[in-house]
Amino acid sequence: MKILNDPIYGFITIRYPIILNLIDHPYFQRLNRIKQLGLSYLVYPGAHHTRFHHAIGAMHLMQNAIDVLKLKEIEISEEEELGALIAILLHDIGHGPFSHALEHTLVKGVSHEDISILLMNKLNEEFEGKLDLSIEIFRNNYKKKFLHQLVSSQLDMDRLDYLKRDSFYSGVSEGVVSSDRIINMLNVHNDELVIEEKGIYSIEKFIVARRLMYWQVYLHKTVLAAENLLVRILKRAKYLAENGVELHASPVLKKFLYNNYSKADFDTNEVLEAFTQLDDTDLYSAIKTWAKHEDFTLSKISNALINRDLPKIIIQKEPFEETRINGLTKLVKETYSISDEEVNYIVFDSAITNNAYNAKEDVINIKYKNGDILNITDASDNFNIQSLTEPVKKYFVCYPKEFRGKW
Amino acid sequence: MKILNDPIYGFITIRYPIILNLIDHPYFQRLNRIKQLGLSYLVYPGAHHTRFHHAIGAMHLMQNAIDVLKLKEIEISEEEELGALIAILLHDIGHGPFSHALEHTLVKGVSHEDISILLMNKLNEEFEGKLDLSIEIFRNNYKKKFLHQLVSSQLDMDRLDYLKRDSFYSGVSEGVVSSDRIINMLNVHNDELVIEEKGIYSIEKFIVARRLMYWQVYLHKTVLAAENLLVRILKRAKYLAENGVELHASPVLKKFLYNNYSKADFDTNEVLEAFTQLDDTDLYSAIKTWAKHEDFTLSKISNALINRDLPKIIIQKEPFEETRINGLTKLVKETYSISDEEVNYIVFDSAITNNAYNAKEDVINIKYKNGDILNITDASDNFNIQSLTEPVKKYFVCYPKEFRGKW
Amino acid sequence: MKILNDPIYGFITIRYPIILNLIDHPYFQRLNRIKQLGLSYLVYPGAHHTRFHHAIGAMHLMQNAIDVLKLKEIEISEEEELGALIAILLHDIGHGPFSHALEHTLVKGVSHEDISILLMNKLNEEFEGKLDLSIEIFRNNYKKKFLHQLVSSQLDMDRLDYLKRDSFYSGVSEGVVSSDRIINMLNVHNDELVIEEKGIYSIEKFIVARRLMYWQVYLHKTVLAAENLLVRILKRAKYLAENGVELHASPVLKKFLYNNYSKADFDTNEVLEAFTQLDDTDLYSAIKTWAKHEDFTLSKISNALINRDLPKIIIQKEPFEETRINGLTKLVKETYSISDEEVNYIVFDSAITNNAYNAKEDVINIKYKNGDILNITDASDNFNIQSLTEPVKKYFVCYPKEFRGKW
Amino acid sequence: MKILNDPIYGFITIRYPIILNLIDHPYFQRLNRIKQLGLSYLVYPGAHHTRFHHAIGAMHLMQNAIDVLKLKEIEISEEEELGALIAILLHDIGHGPFSHALEHTLVKGVSHEDISILLMNKLNEEFEGKLDLSIEIFRNNYKKKFLHQLVSSQLDMDRLDYLKRDSFYSGVSEGVVSSDRIINMLNVHNDELVIEEKGIYSIEKFIVARRLMYWQVYLHKTVLAAENLLVRILKRAKYLAENGVELHASPVLKKFLYNNYSKADFDTNEVLEAFTQLDDTDLYSAIKTWAKHEDFTLSKISNALINRDLPKIIIQKEPFEETRINGLTKLVKETYSISDEEVNYIVFDSAITNNAYNAKEDVINIKYKNGDILNITDASDNFNIQSLTEPVKKYFVCYPKEFRGKW
Repeated sequence: MKILNDPIYGFITIRYPIILNLIDHPYFQRLNRIKQLGLSYLVYPGAHHTRFHHAIGAMHLMQNAIDVLKLKEIEISEEEELGALIAILLHDIGHGPFSHALEHTLVKGVSHEDISILLMNKLNEEFEGKLDLSIEIFRNNYKKKFLHQLVSSQLDMDRLDYLKRDSFYSGVSEGVVSSDRIINMLNVHNDELVIEEKGIYSIEKFIVARRLMYWQVYLHKTVLAAENLLVRILKRAKYLAENGVELHASPVLKKFLYNNYSKADFDTNEVLEAFTQLDDTDLYSAIKTWAKHEDFTLSKISNALINRDLPKIIIQKEPFEETRINGLTKLVKETYSISDEEVNYIVFDSAITNNAYNAKEDVINIKYKNGDILNITDASDNFNIQSLTEPVKKYFVCYPKEFRGKW
Repeated sequence: MKILNDPIYGFITIRYPIILNLIDHPYFQRLNRIKQLGLSYLVYPGAHHTRFHHAIGAMHLMQNAIDVLKLKEIEISEEEELGALIAILLHDIGHGPFSHALEHTLVKGVSHEDISILLMNKLNEEFEGKLDLSIEIFRNNYKKKFLHQLVSSQLDMDRLDYLKRDSFYSGVSEGVVSSDRIINMLNVHNDELVIEEKGIYSIEKFIVARRLMYWQVYLHKTVLAAENLLVRILKRAKYLAENGVELHASPVLKKFLYNNYSKADFDTNEVLEAFTQLDDTDLYSAIKTWAKHEDFTLSKISNALINRDLPKIIIQKEPFEETRINGLTKLVKETYSISDEEVNYIVFDSAITNNAYNAKEDVINIKYKNGDILNITDASDNFNIQSLTEPVKKYFVCYPKEFRGKW
Repeated sequence: MKILNDPIYGFITIRYPIILNLIDHPYFQRLNRIKQLGLSYLVYPGAHHTRFHHAIGAMHLMQNAIDVLKLKEIEISEEEELGALIAILLHDIGHGPFSHALEHTLVKGVSHEDISILLMNKLNEEFEGKLDLSIEIFRNNYKKKFLHQLVSSQLDMDRLDYLKRDSFYSGVSEGVVSSDRIINMLNVHNDELVIEEKGIYSIEKFIVARRLMYWQVYLHKTVLAAENLLVRILKRAKYLAENGVELHASPVLKKFLYNNYSKADFDTNEVLEAFTQLDDTDLYSAIKTWAKHEDFTLSKISNALINRDLPKIIIQKEPFEETRINGLTKLVKETYSISDEEVNYIVFDSAITNNAYNAKEDVINIKYKNGDILNITDASDNFNIQSLTEPVKKYFVCYPKEFRGKW
Repeated sequence: MKILNDPIYGFITIRYPIILNLIDHPYFQRLNRIKQLGLSYLVYPGAHHTRFHHAIGAMHLMQNAIDVLKLKEIEISEEEELGALIAILLHDIGHGPFSHALEHTLVKGVSHEDISILLMNKLNEEFEGKLDLSIEIFRNNYKKKFLHQLVSSQLDMDRLDYLKRDSFYSGVSEGVVSSDRIINMLNVHNDELVIEEKGIYSIEKFIVARRLMYWQVYLHKTVLAAENLLVRILKRAKYLAENGVELHASPVLKKFLYNNYSKADFDTNEVLEAFTQLDDTDLYSAIKTWAKHEDFTLSKISNALINRDLPKIIIQKEPFEETRINGLTKLVKETYSISDEEVNYIVFDSAITNNAYNAKEDVINIKYKNGDILNITDASDNFNIQSLTEPVKKYFVCYPKEFRGKW
């Protein structure tokens, strides 16, 4: 029995030795060097929590959920319990640094989910098949479907922990979800996770809190500007690398800058191992040197990120008029005397959607005392959840602050 | 008026534009990449908070303290208020990554306090003398002595914030100090900070909480092992560098590895600027590559840190017998076939002291309703604070885990 | 400057001597003996907080709100500040014990708002006119309309405090509203309170939290059963009193049992003074003796309340069929051998509505950066607030537990 | 499985039906009408929590402690678990309203511990012997001594809950003890409760927090004045009752005013039953009427309590000079034209001691990893716990405020 301190849950007790061994593994330890929220700390200075901590927190909630279900006489064997604990512990093991940005630049075509599976399989070999059940649960191949739902669904332990953790560390106290109450309301019906009737208002509140977190934190406009800037930095660096320009970077980062790996390449040990040695610190350390690079564009945008001299961002519900954007682009291009190609790293527009909840594909079911099961959107007597859960699309444009008010 | 979210205080309101400008300065922004507690996250996975956040938190407490003192009709002009706010905001500006380790290796003979003064002077130039008063307060040259005490003394805002913040993020909830109550009990008497009589039990509790934080967090034995390991890594790297061995590192880190700078060198712009570009990420990124270096010693200890395969540490109140340590050292040396010189990076012993409070040099004074002033050690009617505040020395030895039980 | 401890806000600082004098007044001190949530502690055992504490908490929020508005350069003189503080401090001064139950039985036709005005006027006399401005603000006769809105509107300090306080003490942590953030988002536009654009999600969350508190706490079915039982106890006692039956009660409670006072009677000093001496303890102390009264009905329902042997309650969205209720009533009547008149104290049905928000009469306005003002129901881009705010009516019936499953 | 909300612990799960039945019993329900901290709310307006809530909270901690000990492979049968849960649930069942004051006036010579035993025996009869084991544990007659220590010792669940609860509700946040950590550090050695080595700093902090709570809350000087005033009110009322003066009171309160019951009388059903019907509300309701009684003394001191016009209190470390007190007494006597006997209800002096910890009788033992057991006073390496735990005696005098500065 090992006890970890957690500012959110107080203590996290680890009951199984294999879990300690997995946590000690270099694949898992590296998550200590990958922030859960990427660049959000630029707006919320407390948000430096890591994927390491989130994975352990989600596992703690899984333990609580299993304890509650067992008290409610849902049958879960010790093997299944351990399987579910490991599945949630490793659900994010394939994340690299700034995953979203990386997937658009250095590891195109390879999702973190793909890599999670690859790493789980490798760990399973090392642990001599002891992860078989976990992998089945993770991939939803196990007969007890509700165990997978605890790992991945509208109300999985992943979401409960990250919403709570992200709101805790960012200080956006209104995003706090009552994971305790939701877990206490869990039950299983026809092999599916359901929420007991008394929990209906907590679910409503959970959905509202999630929406709030999306607009206030995950899609906060300054964070959006920073993340899009990072994508451009990596794109520019890769472009220069492909053109034979010398860039300072750690050996593993260089590997991904100067080569293009496909998903097939990740099946080789070499590329996968390299990937597991990459973390936030390689990127920061490199970008700081790029801020002094002779390439004007790379230097300009690297500087902007490192010294938090972020682009101005405008967000609106309608697309921007093309002619207006063109005018801005032209102005910036001429001011800086840069090429058409280069200006696109400095002025850019795009769109975002808050895909918080997809009511069509995945549902939250409420179980009534009389045995009825209703989807939350039908169960909620006067709450138009449908409207809350419809994705909202917004458009934005970013450009250097000095052009504010000049176009 | 700008508002920042803080998980600890809720909101931090910034009332003066110059403070925003200082926060935006690259010197200050880099503190975002320097963890307040260095390697403590290896034991307390929540402890990733930064010096950036601490500095802003301490400034927030300063604002509160000044508001309280003004309500108690202590005269503080707006200029003095701003001076004190800036002094506390910048009090740690000279910290580098893992300051303690660095001061023993790469920047020998130059303390972070020295560098703070250098950087404040440079900022003062940039801000055209607007930091004059702050620097006077910081260096205790200003006539109102209590303003300096708010920045640096037994009960300064620095300590109040870091004890609270470190206990909050580490999850060691018992270290929490009631900064609110202590600040409410502050007063000024003969130009010195005092605590009002009603606050005496809070001060006792503060002293106990601080002691608890020392032994439970700052001097936690696993953290101690990790920090001492880091010192050996940097020493080994510097040794190799001095002997012409090639090491991967970012350009600024290389500068400090391959050169020996004195305090005088820091007076030149070039070295100081280089220092301000160094942060935690350079060290991590480099150490990860060193874990694969051909030098057995460097590779071994770098690996141990990166993959959290930390040395075994034994702590005791008496010094270790020399013959016993020698036996262990010999065993390790022979097992690894390394030299006398090399083994010292792998087996090492030392001592620590918790210098939490030095009753002789610096005191906490209690002010009674009848006007009497008493030192807390005399004021506390039955509490032997003296004993609490006497430094305790402990001895430790570190060595690779595989030798546990073998010497 | 006087400081009060508050578990919710930490410290409450009182800056004005007249406020201390008002708090010390017997009219205000009696609120210490009147619970804010009446009988809710029967479900939520922590909910013993008083109207005294709520009034002081609301005043604290008022102070915060005024501080924020002043920082935003809304003009508020010291006189107006004090006026608003007193207005909110005294807004509930007219509450008696279990106001809702009392207004249906012992003080019919006299609302607590009426009595608040009467008591404020009396206090104004005692304090020699110093409450003039407070009374103007309270009655919305003062020119700066937004000051009244801070006392009474959709987002007044009353509501912010009671939602927060009730959820805190009941332990329904999901009802917690972020009063801090909402207050920070307040502004004034055309003499009306508005919320700044950034606060829109907090307002949505506030509305959902409020709805949750209604159904989970204020209209919790067990609380509903208890409160309706109390109404019947008082009705029965009054009926017996009117028929000359002797009842134990404190002198002031007797006054209200054995007399029928109209609103006009309250204008006399004697009745008003008697009212200000009535509190929760008179009712409990009397009902305990009534539990042993020879009248079967009074004794039965008094016992049920005192020993928490509460009626079974059924709630549904449609009205109950009359014949079914009649059957139940007949069964109970015959079992207990009681009259038609008596059975109505023991079996009763009624309806409730959650009047949380009346979008037609009162609105929450959002102020956009570009100066636009939009009602929250229009401002919220995809949130059907309309549906959240429509009143919901539910029907219930109560009867002794022993008849469960027998009708 | 029944779940209760608790603002402190979140949720309290009740696993055994008999515990629900005990909670529902009128003996236990009455604790809902008895405040845990008596008159402390006059200083800490949040402190209205009840003995009911404390008893349930202590039971919750007992469940946690048992769960932890079982994980550490201490043998505890389900019967013993239930026995310990019931023992702690009922440990305070014999408390009356304002127990301390009552024991000095209306129920002289009968302690609440005596009554607890009487009531437990009665409940045991009603529950057909199911409380046998609980009573054995409670009276320390059961072979496993550590179970009794969980109910009553330096670190029992009673103390852990009340310190935490009292500090929570009073808002004296510094009194908060980390019950979680202490419970996690519990172990059993030679059938005695011990604390594991790692918990030593938490125990130190617990002892300091307890001392803080004594001086800041339990023995707060205003609370002391109020409680001593209440004793005088009850003494005066009893004196008048004994002299045949008519006093308004509820029938049960009258019983104790107009009769003198010995401990033997409590063995009769009648007196015990009467006692179980007495609660805070009887006293408040009566004292309010006494405030208008024609006896000058009774009316004066009753008024002072009800309207919080409390006596001035002076506390000092040395006894007061007799001549000075005599002078004050004479002055008050003459001013009010009252007798020697009467003035003693209005001017009174006495002494208090904080019996927080009695190191001689009862100890906290620390268990080291190497198996050593040390008393905390020896284990703590530099902490003079002895001094912290020595009782401190203080002297006080109370008199009407109008005489302040006049003697």
